[in-house]
Amino acid sequence: MSKYIIGVDLGGTNMRAGVVSVTGKILFKKSLPTVSSADISDRIGDLIAEVILAQNIKNDEVVGVGIGVPGPIDHKNGSVLSPNLPQLSGLPIVEILERITGFSINLENDANAATYGEFWLGAGRDCRSLVMATLGTGIGGGIIFNGELVRGIDWTAGELGHVNVDSGAGARLCGCGARGCIETYASAISTERRFVEELERGRESELSSMDKNKITCVDIFEAYKDGDSLAVETINETGRMLGILCSSMANLLNPEKFIFSGGITNEWDILSKLIIDEFNKRVLTIPGQRMQILRAELENDAGLIGAAGCALKTYETSQ
Amino acid sequence: MSKYIIGVDLGGTNMRAGVVSVTGKILFKKSLPTVSSADISDRIGDLIAEVILAQNIKNDEVVGVGIGVPGPIDHKNGSVLSPNLPQLSGLPIVEILERITGFSINLENDANAATYGEFWLGAGRDCRSLVMATLGTGIGGGIIFNGELVRGIDWTAGELGHVNVDSGAGARLCGCGARGCIETYASAISTERRFVEELERGRESELSSMDKNKITCVDIFEAYKDGDSLAVETINETGRMLGILCSSMANLLNPEKFIFSGGITNEWDILSKLIIDEFNKRVLTIPGQRMQILRAELENDAGLIGAAGCALKTYETSQ
Repeated sequence: MSKYIIGVDLGGTNMRAGVVSVTGKILFKKSLPTVSSADISDRIGDLIAEVILAQNIKNDEVVGVGIGVPGPIDHKNGSVLSPNLPQLSGLPIVEILERITGFSINLENDANAATYGEFWLGAGRDCRSLVMATLGTGIGGGIIFNGELVRGIDWTAGELGHVNVDSGAGARLCGCGARGCIETYASAISTERRFVEELERGRESELSSMDKNKITCVDIFEAYKDGDSLAVETINETGRMLGILCSSMANLLNPEKFIFSGGITNEWDILSKLIIDEFNKRVLTIPGQRMQILRAELENDAGLIGAAGCALKTYETSQ
Repeated sequence: MSKYIIGVDLGGTNMRAGVVSVTGKILFKKSLPTVSSADISDRIGDLIAEVILAQNIKNDEVVGVGIGVPGPIDHKNGSVLSPNLPQLSGLPIVEILERITGFSINLENDANAATYGEFWLGAGRDCRSLVMATLGTGIGGGIIFNGELVRGIDWTAGELGHVNVDSGAGARLCGCGARGCIETYASAISTERRFVEELERGRESELSSMDKNKITCVDIFEAYKDGDSLAVETINETGRMLGILCSSMANLLNPEKFIFSGGITNEWDILSKLIIDEFNKRVLTIPGQRMQILRAELENDAGLIGAAGCALKTYETSQ
C-alpha cells in the first residue's frame, strides 16, 4: 500500500493543500481563498477531501495531515492563537478537523513548517542544523538543531524577527512594541518603509516621482542597479542588518546553514554579497567558516511540504 | 559496586578536580595552580589520581572523567583551541589523559560544562530548556534544549557574549574584533570599563578619588546603593543590556529559564530588577510570561559538577 501525507498551508488570503509523497514530492495541489467566517474548518476539510479525490488515492493511504498556520500553536488544545486569522484563533482545530476528516491532524507554525520543508528537501537538505529567516511583511523564522525543529516550551521559538539589533533610544519601533527588532530594519516591508521615509525627508531618488504607497522592493532593487544613491544606501542597510543577524546566530548556535526566503531573495546576487560581507567582518572564526548562507529553494511550496514532512515525522515516531 | 565520576575544571589560574557521585554530590575536591609548561597533562593526571586516592575509591568505580576547558573543543582530535591555555592548545589531551589515567575522558567547553551543571543540579533543575550567561571578563554561555547541550556542529555554540545589541557605527569595539557585542556592555569588566571611561571624561562620582585601575563592580554597586549618579547610570545600563539579551533569547528560543552567573550576580536584587524591567518592556507575550530569569546556584562548583555530569551522560549513553 502506498502512503501519502496531506500538506496544508493556511494563509490569511489563500489556503493551499496538496497530496505529498513520503519522499516529499507534491503530486497534486489546489488553492482556495481563505474564508473569514467561522466555517473555515469546513472549508479546510473540503479542500483536503478534494485533493485526495483529485489524486485518486484511498483514505487509508493517508498517514496524516499537516497544517501550517500563522501564529503560535497552542499544542495542548490543538489550536492556534492567530491575529492574522481571527476566525480560526482559539478554535480547537485539531479536534474539529480530526472529526471532519477522520485523519490525524498535525498543526505547525507556518514559519517552522517552511523551515522544516527547506531542511527536508530544500537548501537545508544534507545537514542537521540550520536557521531560516523569511523576509516579508515581518521576519519569520525557524531553527533546526540535531535534525529537530526547536519549537520551544510553548511552541513560540524561532521569532528571529524580534531579535534586537539596536539597543539605542532612537532605534526603530517594531510592531511588537519593542524598539530595535531586526524586523523593523530588514524585512521587505521595512526596507520599503525606510526608503519612503527618506523620500519624505526630501532625499532625491529616481523613484521620487512614483506614488510612495506603491514603491516596492522590486523598484528599489531596480534603482539600486542604476546606482541610485538612496536605493543603494537602503539596500546596503538591509544587507548589513541581515549580516549582523547571521553573525549573532552563528556565534550563538554554530549551525551549518543560514537560509533566507521571501520575495526579496529574488535579488540574491546583490543581497547575499551584502549579507556575507558584513557577516565575515563580524563573526567568530570557527562558526563563521562553517555557516553557509543560502537562498531557500522550495519557494512557495516550503510551507506545504514542511507541514506534510512534520506530519510524516509524527506518524513515523508513533509507529 | 559504587560509581563515581571525576570532574575537572581547568582554568587559566587554577585547576580543580573532584570526586563526584552519580547524584552530582562533590565528595572530595582539590585545587592546584595551573602550570604553564607542556607537562600540564601530567599535572592533570596527578590531580585526578590524587582525588581518587584521597576519597579512597577504586579505579574501577570511576566511570569516567569530565574536563571543562576554556575555549572551543576540537571534538575530532580530542583537543581544545584555547588562547587562555596556550600550553594545552592543540594538544591531543583526551588521548594523552586516557593513556596516563586509564579512564575515559570527556572534554567539554567550560561555559557549556557550567551550564550543564546548573541544568543538572542548580537553578536549571526541573526544566528541559534554558539559556545561561556567565558574566565575568567576557560573557560566556550555554544553551540546553530538550535536556541536551546545544553544542553546535563545531562545538562552538553558546557564545552569548557575541550576540550583537548595537549595530551602529559608534558601537563599542569587542575583543573579538566586531562592534556592538553584548559582552562589551554588560560583562563585569565592561561595566567597570564604562564606569572608568566616564570618570576619565570628567564625570564626578564618589569613586573619583580611587585608583581607576582598582575600581571593581563591587565598588560600583556600593556607590549605586549610595545613589551615586554615575554608578546608577552604569549599572542601569548593564541591567538594560542584559534585559535586551534576555528578550532576544526568549523570542528566539522560548526556553523555560535564563540563568545568570558570575560574581556580579552577588548583587542579584539590584541586577535582576533592572534586567526583568527591561525584559518585560520588550519581550513577546507568550515566551515572556514563560521565561524565568534566575541566578545560578552552584557558584564555583558549576563547572566541575557539570563536567562530571557530561561525562556521566556519555557513560550512560554508551551503556
